[in-house]
Order: sequence, then structure tokens, then C-alpha cells
Amino acid sequence: MPPLRLNPTLFNRCRASSRPRLLRPALLPRFLAAQARWSSATTEPNQPDPDGGTQGAPSSQKHIKYTSESYPEIKRDSKFGGLSEKHVQYFKELLGTESAVIDGFSQDATDDLEPFNSDWMRKYKGHTKLVVKPGSTEEVSKVLKYCNYNMLAVVPQGGNSGLVGGSVPVFDEIVVNMSRMNKIRDFDEVSGTLVVDAGCILEVADHFLAEKNHIFPLDLGAKGSCQIGGNVATNAGGLRLLRYGSLHGNVLGIEAVLPDGTVMDDLSRLRKNNTGYDIKQLFIGGEGTIGIITGVSIQCPQRSKASNVAFFGLESFGKVQQAFCAAKGQLSEILSAFELMDGPSQDLVHRVTDKKRPLEGQHPFYCLIETSGSNPDHDSEKLESFLENVMGEEIVSDGVLAQDETQIQSLWSWREGIPECLGHWGGVYKYDLSIPLPELYKLVEDTRERLTSAGLVGDDETHPVVGVVGYGHMGDSNLHLNIATRRFDKEVENKLEPFVYEWIAKRNGSISAEHGLGLAKKAFIGYSRSETMIRLMKQIKELYDPNGIMNPYKYI
Amino acid sequence: MPPLRLNPTLFNRCRASSRPRLLRPALLPRFLAAQARWSSATTEPNQPDPDGGTQGAPSSQKHIKYTSESYPEIKRDSKFGGLSEKHVQYFKELLGTESAVIDGFSQDATDDLEPFNSDWMRKYKGHTKLVVKPGSTEEVSKVLKYCNYNMLAVVPQGGNSGLVGGSVPVFDEIVVNMSRMNKIRDFDEVSGTLVVDAGCILEVADHFLAEKNHIFPLDLGAKGSCQIGGNVATNAGGLRLLRYGSLHGNVLGIEAVLPDGTVMDDLSRLRKNNTGYDIKQLFIGGEGTIGIITGVSIQCPQRSKASNVAFFGLESFGKVQQAFCAAKGQLSEILSAFELMDGPSQDLVHRVTDKKRPLEGQHPFYCLIETSGSNPDHDSEKLESFLENVMGEEIVSDGVLAQDETQIQSLWSWREGIPECLGHWGGVYKYDLSIPLPELYKLVEDTRERLTSAGLVGDDETHPVVGVVGYGHMGDSNLHLNIATRRFDKEVENKLEPFVYEWIAKRNGSISAEHGLGLAKKAFIGYSRSETMIRLMKQIKELYDPNGIMNPYKYI
Repeated sequence: MPPLRLNPTLFNRCRASSRPRLLRPALLPRFLAAQARWSSATTEPNQPDPDGGTQGAPSSQKHIKYTSESYPEIKRDSKFGGLSEKHVQYFKELLGTESAVIDGFSQDATDDLEPFNSDWMRKYKGHTKLVVKPGSTEEVSKVLKYCNYNMLAVVPQGGNSGLVGGSVPVFDEIVVNMSRMNKIRDFDEVSGTLVVDAGCILEVADHFLAEKNHIFPLDLGAKGSCQIGGNVATNAGGLRLLRYGSLHGNVLGIEAVLPDGTVMDDLSRLRKNNTGYDIKQLFIGGEGTIGIITGVSIQCPQRSKASNVAFFGLESFGKVQQAFCAAKGQLSEILSAFELMDGPSQDLVHRVTDKKRPLEGQHPFYCLIETSGSNPDHDSEKLESFLENVMGEEIVSDGVLAQDETQIQSLWSWREGIPECLGHWGGVYKYDLSIPLPELYKLVEDTRERLTSAGLVGDDETHPVVGVVGYGHMGDSNLHLNIATRRFDKEVENKLEPFVYEWIAKRNGSISAEHGLGLAKKAFIGYSRSETMIRLMKQIKELYDPNGIMNPYKYI
Repeated sequence: MPPLRLNPTLFNRCRASSRPRLLRPALLPRFLAAQARWSSATTEPNQPDPDGGTQGAPSSQKHIKYTSESYPEIKRDSKFGGLSEKHVQYFKELLGTESAVIDGFSQDATDDLEPFNSDWMRKYKGHTKLVVKPGSTEEVSKVLKYCNYNMLAVVPQGGNSGLVGGSVPVFDEIVVNMSRMNKIRDFDEVSGTLVVDAGCILEVADHFLAEKNHIFPLDLGAKGSCQIGGNVATNAGGLRLLRYGSLHGNVLGIEAVLPDGTVMDDLSRLRKNNTGYDIKQLFIGGEGTIGIITGVSIQCPQRSKASNVAFFGLESFGKVQQAFCAAKGQLSEILSAFELMDGPSQDLVHRVTDKKRPLEGQHPFYCLIETSGSNPDHDSEKLESFLENVMGEEIVSDGVLAQDETQIQSLWSWREGIPECLGHWGGVYKYDLSIPLPELYKLVEDTRERLTSAGLVGDDETHPVVGVVGYGHMGDSNLHLNIATRRFDKEVENKLEPFVYEWIAKRNGSISAEHGLGLAKKAFIGYSRSETMIRLMKQIKELYDPNGIMNPYKYI
């Protein structure tokens, strides 16, 4: 069955003939089927992107520059000890199995170390000579205690799917990779409380929960590779924060190891526990700078029985805001996603994939709306009434409604495929920003205007910039501003920074809505946080990690 | 219209005659109306109780013992300075207006100071000689800076509606009362973000939001007097946490003053902001021990268009659990409260109020279920289908469904009226506990058995205990165990403590689910938290309040 196509002209014609309920999904396809032209073919993404999207590895296997070369101003801190054979020996004995230690000290293991030294974007590359993979909280504790005593710097590493270089070393920091701690520890079906090892893959947990009729309250494009410990450490937001809220609300307990080896046993399974400072919250978004998360307890909602996805074209960002308000008001408790994509982002997806577009013609803006609820009939009725409103009022210009799971996935691919397609020409400058909603899109316009008037944007090889696009989680006021380029170019960079950050600071926005600080944003925190807050944060770092061994050179 | 009455016998009779939809609210009243016997008269509670209930002030105007007498083991810390005329003069000049300073130093102001020195339960009483009421964040900053420099201990005070003695002084601590900072600063209708002064009364904010078609994501019995700053400082839970989640998820920003006068300007209005440690979280549930919250930014959901309340009688706690699972599964996204009341609690309410019971006969357990949704028809249908299930399966024995707002309030009064009625005979031992759901009610049975077999429970004056009851927020695994007594009695206390806390510790529960630690639970934190966690908490206290002037003698 083709997806249900809707547009206001048709709708108003129907309405004029006094058939106001003609948008009912069961009816419309019959007389609109002939006009449906959109293919539901999808492409398989190579590589997940935590933008709530999927992103291919850059098309060319370019040489990865060492971070220490890209950021020459960062110097290795001489307080850290160097790795010796004695150290390697200690870890080998501690962790027992050969496979738990990858050692480039006594032998050439460059290829084996490569995946742990560099990020999937191939943007950051470290010089580590040692990767350890502890298999238990106790082993993590012994590793950190030893490193702290010997002043060996450490980088905690989960699925290594971050976008800000937070999970790879800069110099010779030891990588503590959590992939061996990957068990689901416990699930209680009555309360919906899940307890997992930090290295458990998000998708593995979600599949496990699906069998129990529950859902993980976080979803993002990288779910096939990202680990829950990393999600929590970076306070991942993702696609359904709008519906299920943030990890600060959903995480019930954390087990973590402090740099001195102390095990913070705060793995509560209780929804309510007002007995003292909620210290675990510091580890949510702490990016591995004060300890390593080893276990997580989280409340999981029941899985929805029904899911619907609609995809609209709109004439202006004002109309997108109107549609968002209408969705909040009318879809209310069943609204689970409201995603924004601008016209240029969809044009680039179309250029790269050559897929048929979901809608006829081109529109300045698109949005994807998802509902999740417990009663398919009720959800359809609510959606229908919402569609009547936004189409009758001509808030949206055109739209389609997915008719089955394949079409749902296909519509999502026009949102999730953006990051992958943007990488097609070379590199992408990526900004992940929180901006008050009315001005959310103005930054994209201002940036495009700025780069265009500098003569940097164009269709041929002489121009470094292919396009300036905006998309993101409209429901959370979270914009992803992306600049697709043919090559990284200093002039482009100079036009972008600090321009983007100053623009954000003027509007009290956030320079990192969900990606975190890592190495990429460390220098810019002052645009989103006051000196007082930064001072208070440094106090916390000093308190938990006085030797500074945890994930150095990054964060604050 | 009388409330709709339902019971399985009638339901099954209807079903046998193949009229499976007879429970539709529009139909049932007609043939059951004659049987309705429940009066919707309500009593006006005197005084709110933050248990998610309303509680009268104890019936007798008993003499309030000084906390320093009830807890002779707590000694005034000699490091704190004593109040002098010079200090009082400073505050008078700083705060300008006469009414902002109540001073019992140079004059006898015992009566004026009384409401600030004692709690509404008349259980705790301090010796303060000075109450200051700053009118701005800057004034709070100057007050604390001065106190910190002069080693003057301080108690932050909001609506003073707490249950653990956290907001009144023990000795001569200066009360910093926040009632003058009571403004709504800002509201954004598109995002639903509300920014308020800390001293804003919860109900005032909720009424303001009602006009904007939004709702405060926290509701509790004390809403008419409690202040939002106090709610956040105590991480209040309340009636609808089940639906809207905890303050750790909903609070977007906090402005607070640290003991040294530093203003922590973290009043973000953004849903997502991953730029450093989320320090504000330490103030949520910090109970005024590391600073004073002066402003709060919080995300508020849209107000539901429809609300339904049903009230059931059930034969066992096993059936209550079945009903809860059914409600989660079938009412799903519209379920907004699932409250438990045991038979004895309802018997006591009945004895005190002499109101007609909602249901005929008596039942070992009762529960109150509330739905809130955007479409009244859909909600009714979901509720109807749920009722069919729980009555058809004989999970519930009897039930009523409110037909209008008056009946909704009246049904709620059987839940919210419990704390008030328990105080009728004298004092109440109150425990606020998180317990894994399957064992939630066992504690009430075990406690009742323990006190009964010790000969302490009875209907006449010779027995100190009137009854042992359990009620609470089933949806959050949060039990309120209450022991209604004719008089406080050492033998009763010895039977209860540490028994209750040991019982909780064995099950990894929480000794304070939502009330906090204050003075009442300070000594018992070890039953819910490990030595490591307590040590980490003490580090935080030491970091922010090295002089220890903030709310001393309490918390950890």
C-alpha cells in the first residue's frame, strides 16, 4: 500500500463537499492512491551517528591527523607517568586473559590499537599504546587505583560513537574499554526497572526490553554500537527525549569507580529515594572525567502498541512552529517525536541517495511527527483530527502518512539519513545547539548568508562549502547546524568560529545541547556557562580526581 | 448525579446476558442509580500535609517541646557565633523595611517568632531570635555572606510544610524566610518553561499555569502553603510523579546562593544543555545544607483536557498489584495516579469524618486511579475497557467512577484525608518508605503484628496505639506507614525503631522516599546508604559549606 498522501488543496476540496472526515486513513488512500509517487526503498546506513541519525563513514579513507597535530596548543602534561613494561605486565596479570589487554609497548600493535585510538568520524587520533578491557567492577577499580597511584592518564571508552572526541586519547592515555562488561543484570517487569553493565549495547538492551513489552527511554541513531554507560556519561538526548524525558530523570542508580578505586555503590532501583545529595547526577554528563560508570539502573516505560509517522512540507519556519504547537496541543500525550529538516538538507539527501522524495515538489521546510500510544484507533483519530487542523488551516502545504512499518522506516530515513549524506562530499562542520524556539532557524539563515556572501558556497570544486543545513529535535529546541564541505578549510572555520558561539551566547542558548564537550567544545564552554559555574565545575573535578588522570585535556 | 457504581457480580451478570459494553459510563448509572449510597460531602482540611494528602493540625493545642529537649544528644555547636545587637542592626539596614526582620533579641517577640520557630506538626521547636526575609537574590547573597563571615548558623525556610523538621531551627540559627521572593518571573507558552522566585507558592504557580493551559509537574497536598524553592530543595515527589517524573528531570535551571554569598547563576531555560557537570542537581534534595535556592526554571506540561477518577475495593494486596499492572498496561499514557489505601486507613477516616463510604461494605484494600488525557472520549473508552478487565477478571471487588469534579474531589478526600484523620487521637508515627512493590504492604502487616502482640494496640485509652495503617503512592513503590497513637509512647517507639529501618535495609528500600532527611531521619541514613556514599556526601557538604553554617544538626 502506498503511503497516504495529503495536501490542503485536496483537503479543502473534500471539505467543501461536506465530507469533513475524509482524511480518515482508511478512506483517503482509495482516491489518492494513483497520485502516490514516493518509493519506500531505503538505504542501509553504514555507520550510526548519535545525532539521532545515521551517518556513513567518510567516503574516502582519508589519513587521520593526530589530535596532537590538529591541536598543537595542547601539550602532554608531564605530570603523567610513561608506560613501562612493568605496567603492562601488571594489567596482563590482573585481567588474566590475553584478549583483555592490547599492548603496543613491547610489540608493534598499531593496527590492533587503531580502532581505540581514533574516532569513527576519523577526526581525532591518539597515541595510546595500551588498551585494557576490564570484565568486572572490581577489575575497573583495580585498574584505576593502579593508574591513579602511578599517575597514568586514562580514557574511559564505551562504543566510541561520540561526536566531540571525548572517548579517544589525545596522547598516550590508557584506554579503559568497557565492552567486556556487557551483561543485562536484572529486570523487574512490574516496576520496569532495568539494571545493566555499563558496556551493554543500547540496542541489545532495547531488544531485550521489547520481549518484555518495555522500551529503553532513550533512542538514537548509534544504538547498534553505543553503550549505555557512554550514553549516561554523555547524557545522551536523542529522538524521544520529548516523550520520555532526560536521563537525569530516568536513571535511578549508578555504580561507578572513582579514580582512587573507590566503588560508588549507588545502584538504587527505587523511583524515590530522598536520602542525601544525589551525587550520581554528576556522573550523568560527566564524560568520564570523575570516574568510570560500571553499572546503570534505569526506569523503562511500557512499549507502545501503536506507532504513526507523518511527514510534512511547510512554507516557512513560522508554519513549523505553528505545527509544533498544534501537535503539542492536539497529539498531546501520544506525541513522541517532532523532528525538523530544512529544504536544503532534504535536497542533499536526495542528491546523494537519488531516492524518490516522500512529497511532490520542494518545500522550504519539512517535519516528521511520530505518535506512540496504547490504542491504535484512538491514536489514529487524534492524528486525523490533528491533520484536519494543520491541513485545513494550511499550516502545512503537503504531507504523507506512513501506512506500515516499512514506510515508517522509510520516512525516518529522510531524517536519519541527513548526517550520512552530508559526509558525501568530504567533511562536515557540525554544531549541536540549544536555541530558544522562535530563533532556532535564524542561525542557519545567518550562517548561510555569512558563508555565501564570503563566496565560500557553491556547486563546483572551487568552493569549499557544498551547503549549510539545519535539522534537529524541534521538540527539544535542539538544532543541528551542519556545514557540508568538500574539504576542511581555514577560511570557512574562521567564518564559523567564534561567530556561531557568539550568536548562541547572545541568546542564552547552549553550545552543546546533547553531544557534550569532549575535546571539540572544551574551549567554548564560556559561551554557555558563567565563570562562576565553570569555577564550581572545576571544584568538582578537583574533588573527585585530584591527580587529574581521568580523560585529561578535555571537558572543562 | 450519583457516582457510577460497579461491581463484578453485577458486571458478570451483565456480561452473561451478552451486553459486554454495559459498563459504558453513560449507561450504567441508569440501572445502578438506586443503589448509590455514597455522599459526596467533603470536609475542608485545616492544614496541608505534603504526603500528597491533607492533614489537620493535631486536635489539641499541645505544648511544643523544644527540639533541644527532645533530642538532648544534640548540642549547640560552640563554633557558631551568638547573635548581637550589631548583627540585628546590620540586617535591618540591609533589608530596609521593618517587616523584613523579626527580632527577638532587643525585645520580646516570642509570639511573632513562634510560627518560624516551630513546624506545623508542632513536633519541632527552635530557639531562634531572628527571622530575616530577603526580597531579592542579591539580599540573600548579602545575608549569607555576612552570616558566613560571622559564623552565624542559618536555616533556610520556605512554606515550612515539611515532615522531618528540616525547615525550623534547633537552637538559635537565623531563619532566612523566603516568602518575600514570591514572583513568577517568566513563562514561555511554546516551550512550557516557567521561571519563578523560590518563595512562590506552588498553588499560585499552578493557578497561573492553568490560565495558560499548562500544569505544574508536581502536585501535593501542601500546595496552598509550600513554596517551589522548598519543593525543589526537598525533591518533593507527590501525587503525579508517576506521570510527570521527578524534579531531577523537570527542573531545567536553578539560581542559588552559596554560603559565601556566591550566586550560582544556573537558571537555564533549555531542555538540553550538555556543557559540564550538572551541579544544580545537588541542590535538588540538598535540603538547604549547601546553599539557598532563590530561583527555579522548570518545564511544565500542557494541562490535560480530561480527568477521571475511579475508586476500588480489593480483597488482597496481590489483587492491588494485579490492578496496578492492568492499569499500567491498559491506561498506559493517560494513567496519572495510582494510590493505595488499606482498609484500616479508610476505617479511621470513616470513624473521624462519619462520611458515607464510597463503596458498600468494607474491603481489605482500596485504590484510587486517576487518568488525565487530551481526549475525553478516548479516555473514557480506555477506562471502560480497563474496568471491564479488572471487574470481569474479579481483580477488584467493587468500584465507583466519579461523574463530575465534585465527585472527583470527594473520592480524592478518602486518600488525601488520611493524614488529617490519623492525627485525631493525638500523635502519629510517620514513615515514608520506598519498598520493592511485591513486599510493599508486608511492612504494614509485620508492624501491626509486632505492636499488637506487644499489647500496644487497642480501642480504649489503656492502649497507646489506635491503629497501624498503610497508604501511599503505589505507582512509585512509595509507602506511608503511619501509626496513629493516643500519646507518644517510648515503648511504641522502641518497638518501631530500629525495627522499621532494619526491615527496609534488608530489602534495599529507602528510609525516606520523598520527605527527606531533615532532623527526623538524619540518624538513620545508614540504613539506606553505604558508608562510601555517606562519605562522598560529606565531601560535598564540606566543599560548599566549609564553615557548616547551613542548616546545621540535620541531613547527613
